[in-house]
Amino acid sequence: MSKPKQAGGRPRDGRVDHAIAAAVRSLLGEQSYATLTVDAVAARAGISKATIYRRYATKQEMIFAVLLHDLNEAPPADTGSLRGDITALTTRIGDQLARSAAGVMAGLLADIHADEALSARFTDSYLAVERSVITTLLDRAVARGELPHRPDPALVHALLLGPLFAWQIMLNEDPTRTTLLADAVARSVTNALTSGALTNPAGIEKASVRQSH
Amino acid sequence: MSKPKQAGGRPRDGRVDHAIAAAVRSLLGEQSYATLTVDAVAARAGISKATIYRRYATKQEMIFAVLLHDLNEAPPADTGSLRGDITALTTRIGDQLARSAAGVMAGLLADIHADEALSARFTDSYLAVERSVITTLLDRAVARGELPHRPDPALVHALLLGPLFAWQIMLNEDPTRTTLLADAVARSVTNALTSGALTNPAGIEKASVRQSH
Repeated sequence: MSKPKQAGGRPRDGRVDHAIAAAVRSLLGEQSYATLTVDAVAARAGISKATIYRRYATKQEMIFAVLLHDLNEAPPADTGSLRGDITALTTRIGDQLARSAAGVMAGLLADIHADEALSARFTDSYLAVERSVITTLLDRAVARGELPHRPDPALVHALLLGPLFAWQIMLNEDPTRTTLLADAVARSVTNALTSGALTNPAGIEKASVRQSH
Repeated sequence: MSKPKQAGGRPRDGRVDHAIAAAVRSLLGEQSYATLTVDAVAARAGISKATIYRRYATKQEMIFAVLLHDLNEAPPADTGSLRGDITALTTRIGDQLARSAAGVMAGLLADIHADEALSARFTDSYLAVERSVITTLLDRAVARGELPHRPDPALVHALLLGPLFAWQIMLNEDPTRTTLLADAVARSVTNALTSGALTNPAGIEKASVRQSH
């Protein structure tokens, strides 16, 4: 439902998709997100602008599709443990993010906030897919007996995805350390989940925490 | 060093700063980050554009100063425990983020990536301050004997800040749940730190984790 539009009737030409994706990635390595144009992508890909616009309504839709729509929608293979499964997921997301320049992701996020159609596509085709994968991993852990019940997927989503995004688009940290971070995030969140620190909010009351306000 | 510039010699007029900040916040509640102008801020604040430009070179610098430069630079008071200290910090950051519209933070981040001067100011006056506060909290925990040694502050920074930012500018989750999230982040990260899950990277080898690639 949220797939890029196809030219009526004709089968989708994968070579064109590939040429567009390669041109977008190559141009974003040379110039900023803001200055990239559909004209330049068409020229680099050796296709017409009309061919691009048959697929994507805007430049933003095109970049979004290239950078985020190649998301692997399948949950990682069952590794036999929650920590293994979560590590596979955070490693995959970290690798995906590390392939894009930080400024590109920041520019795309700003445009997503400014454009309702793009925002809806982002929610439906990226966030919802990731949320569904996370839910699958949590349900597997419940079935294995690693977790007593499924924790709030929204919370787990933020805990897993947030540090990887912050590392890249806020903290401007070394992208070669993304694998280390992906592992640290997986260890931290798995530990919190299996120890009950997150699945038992009532535990807040019992712990000797003095709130600051 | 990274403070906004002051008019030569004259003492800084706090009322003007306050009027600018109030105008920026009020206008950003009515319109988008992209459409906000220095003209509109001057009109709303009842001051001249020149007065604003004596303080900030650009609109982005002005918005940055209003939204992020009022960061409380002091570490939270010592609560007696790492978890209490970290909860105080994540709650403060969560409250600060919840005061801004998600699109404003996304737009500002995109401009920070596109502007070297703003990027340097962001690093020096926002990220470095937060990193320093986190280092203080970790050192307190080491002094208390809660941690055997200080973990990598960059890693802890990403783990604490990331979920709060993702909640607001990526996941578009309910901002009224930010307090819940701030607490969950604090519990998760404290648990990971005190259990040694993060301070013992060599432990990766011993755990029964099968990597996905």
